[in-house]
Amino acid sequence: MDVVVPFDARDPKTRLNGLLDADERSAFALAMLRDVLDAVRAGGGEPTVLATAEVDVDAPVAVDERSLTTAIDDRIEDADGPLAIVMADLPLVTPDAVERLLDAEGPVVLVPGRGGGTNALVVRTSAFHVDFHGASFGDHRRIAADAGIDPTVVDSYRLSTDVDEPADLVEVLLHGEGRAARWLQEREFELVVEEGRVDVARA
Amino acid sequence: MDVVVPFDARDPKTRLNGLLDADERSAFALAMLRDVLDAVRAGGGEPTVLATAEVDVDAPVAVDERSLTTAIDDRIEDADGPLAIVMADLPLVTPDAVERLLDAEGPVVLVPGRGGGTNALVVRTSAFHVDFHGASFGDHRRIAADAGIDPTVVDSYRLSTDVDEPADLVEVLLHGEGRAARWLQEREFELVVEEGRVDVARA
Repeated sequence: MDVVVPFDARDPKTRLNGLLDADERSAFALAMLRDVLDAVRAGGGEPTVLATAEVDVDAPVAVDERSLTTAIDDRIEDADGPLAIVMADLPLVTPDAVERLLDAEGPVVLVPGRGGGTNALVVRTSAFHVDFHGASFGDHRRIAADAGIDPTVVDSYRLSTDVDEPADLVEVLLHGEGRAARWLQEREFELVVEEGRVDVARA
Repeated sequence: MDVVVPFDARDPKTRLNGLLDADERSAFALAMLRDVLDAVRAGGGEPTVLATAEVDVDAPVAVDERSLTTAIDDRIEDADGPLAIVMADLPLVTPDAVERLLDAEGPVVLVPGRGGGTNALVVRTSAFHVDFHGASFGDHRRIAADAGIDPTVVDSYRLSTDVDEPADLVEVLLHGEGRAARWLQEREFELVVEEGRVDVARA
């Protein structure tokens, strides 16, 4: 299945500002993207990166400066088969999780992201369109309902864990096995356990 | 399968202090527990609540004032079949998610909680023991490895979402369909979308 992986190549992961400078945020975002591309391929997908600027990865890159919503809707309209969309900031994603996503049945398959977003979709109908502005998961449910579609929802911690904030790095250090986790370890990020809570700190 | 649901009946969910007073925390914790009991039963489990004090629910309650680790280890030792443990603060859990947990194969099945905890287990061997102190997921992996066991990990957003902090209430309002979600709605908790982020506020 064709899998579009949207990527902000310009100023990614701004909410990690307190922990990472701009160059580090770019490098970390690229490490996450490469983890996602590996998992997508190993899970049976054929990834294309949909980026806001050129990016150096081992996959086809389509540069599109329009909004994510517009760029994805164009691809849904033009698709002559099912199309998956998998976000680039999911460094915990495994081939198994991708397989479960691509195998899920129904005209519209959704995976929520923590905090109201949508981390992955499979679209098998041009009657659906996307809206990535704001809390998109609820919007995608409504758009599907308006088209008479009951969306399939895939229940995956690994697909639902997007990395936006410092607390999310805890999950990467705990459960990541790829480049993003190694990138953090090499920069001496480590877990700190205090009063039963786990936090992240830079040594 | 026998499913133990541990419940702190005394001073639950202290990290929700800023949003809920002590009585509200107790009521909300009970609503979550009842959601979990419903899902466990509908998913094919036979729940017993393992509580620090008496609690009024429609399921057998075993009061045990010892530490959670000691109380669970006793039950693992005494079990004459597989034993599941499912935490009481998982109000997003569905019958499907419980079924996936109980159907997962292997002597030890683990489900991580966000932030390093363990939200659910299935134990089919007395060679394993638990340790709920601190970041338990890594500890449970190590305890299994020391016993020569490669644990099965179930990948479920609904089982991995435990409710400890105000940000977790966002997930309950977005994805919950049971008593805990209704309890929050009735007390006028609602989602607030700001700059693409979703937060929770009381009207």
